[in-house]
Amino acid sequence: MGDAQKTITSLQNPEVKRLMELQLKSAARRESGLAVVEGRRELQHCLDAGHEAVAVYYCPELAGELACDTGGATLIQVSPAVYEKIAYRGGTEGLVAIVRPHHRRLDDLQLSPSPLIIVLESVEKPGNLGAVLRTADAAAADAVIVCDPLTDLFNPNLIRSSVGAFFTVPCVACTSQECIEFLKRHHITILTAQLQDSKPYYDTDMTRPTAIVMGTEATGLTDAWRVAADAHILIPMQGAIDSLNVSVSAAILLFEAVRQRHIPTND
Amino acid sequence: MGDAQKTITSLQNPEVKRLMELQLKSAARRESGLAVVEGRRELQHCLDAGHEAVAVYYCPELAGELACDTGGATLIQVSPAVYEKIAYRGGTEGLVAIVRPHHRRLDDLQLSPSPLIIVLESVEKPGNLGAVLRTADAAAADAVIVCDPLTDLFNPNLIRSSVGAFFTVPCVACTSQECIEFLKRHHITILTAQLQDSKPYYDTDMTRPTAIVMGTEATGLTDAWRVAADAHILIPMQGAIDSLNVSVSAAILLFEAVRQRHIPTND
Repeated sequence: MGDAQKTITSLQNPEVKRLMELQLKSAARRESGLAVVEGRRELQHCLDAGHEAVAVYYCPELAGELACDTGGATLIQVSPAVYEKIAYRGGTEGLVAIVRPHHRRLDDLQLSPSPLIIVLESVEKPGNLGAVLRTADAAAADAVIVCDPLTDLFNPNLIRSSVGAFFTVPCVACTSQECIEFLKRHHITILTAQLQDSKPYYDTDMTRPTAIVMGTEATGLTDAWRVAADAHILIPMQGAIDSLNVSVSAAILLFEAVRQRHIPTND
Repeated sequence: MGDAQKTITSLQNPEVKRLMELQLKSAARRESGLAVVEGRRELQHCLDAGHEAVAVYYCPELAGELACDTGGATLIQVSPAVYEKIAYRGGTEGLVAIVRPHHRRLDDLQLSPSPLIIVLESVEKPGNLGAVLRTADAAAADAVIVCDPLTDLFNPNLIRSSVGAFFTVPCVACTSQECIEFLKRHHITILTAQLQDSKPYYDTDMTRPTAIVMGTEATGLTDAWRVAADAHILIPMQGAIDSLNVSVSAAILLFEAVRQRHIPTND
């Protein structure tokens, strides 16, 4: 911390170009296994969850003294003008980091005794998945599983909209078939959110090991999931629009499980 | 419909400039009492709810035949190049309209026998309010009240993110004091979402006339609301991040009211 560091002032600097490439190109993220995270709290969540920080870029003029854990990462000082270019979120925090998230597979998941899992058959917008992760964190869900192996889990919009939950909630991408086999093997009840042949979610038991499975807003779930389901659930809608955002639907369903699972106190 | 119409090809056309001004300038919306809505379904929701359409801009190359209700509005044909500039959402729908939403005040609200109302003390992002309106539509809430008289209820981001619910759910902006007086006068129970001195929302009765009041994600509610409250409620969080998006919180609370209010069937 006390070392005199050279401040990078050029966008042509190789370290700066490396960061920009990771932010802009999914291929660069995929090939390197690296992701970009912005903000002190987000970096702290990342380190707390045991992920590795590779390099921390910060701007002393914006960040003040770097009085936070940087996990032993290389520190790279940049000028305000450079920071402006590498940051998404305005210059208020002055800190962006390259991190190496754990590469998680289904079999790496550590499940609680009565798991609560949310499965998205596909993800239309990275921001929606980030919002689901944020809610899954608050509901203490065991995992979020995305049944599209091509999903870019390191997308900066996803990480940003999760406000750090990307690092606290295990998130796995796999095929629907792999996911169904995994859930059956672990005796986890599969509840599919769908309109046909379903009953209201609040009339459905979620106290046992439960996976809540949701399709896209536009097309719903594929047949593989309808067949694999132990029960079909729906959120009754009473309005003129009759559609809910996927992260809102996930929240309603996850917190119904929280409600059913809470142990009443005597006061 | 059968009339040969002249297609506007210039961005300098006065009708096009008028639309652009309404999209970009809140002062233009405020002074004229007009808003902009994009898409067929959204326009239909607007007309179904009894709002007036003033002008419908459409691009035949993108929209095909205009086989939809346009509420007697002036029809304005534009070229694909002009449409590209006036539309937010890519050119797939080919339809944008200027509409005159009802100007609603608290005393205009038509309440059901056991009202369910959501109150936001302020709105950080127009998109959040749009998302709350979408959820309020699905929950058949009576109204969304924003306690900041300066809120621009005609903001295009708000209308767009509501996917039409801006027109189906009554939305009013007023001061906190006006809102508290209104709720008390109508004997509506005030439940404030706050961390201190509160109990879980699912242990709170929402079957009576109920207003759920939420502050900002950053600062919570002001004292006026804490004092006016009949009960304080919280969403128990069990994660590392401990924060929920305002539209997600609103959904969890509104649908708990839906759950408590539903009448079980015998099958």
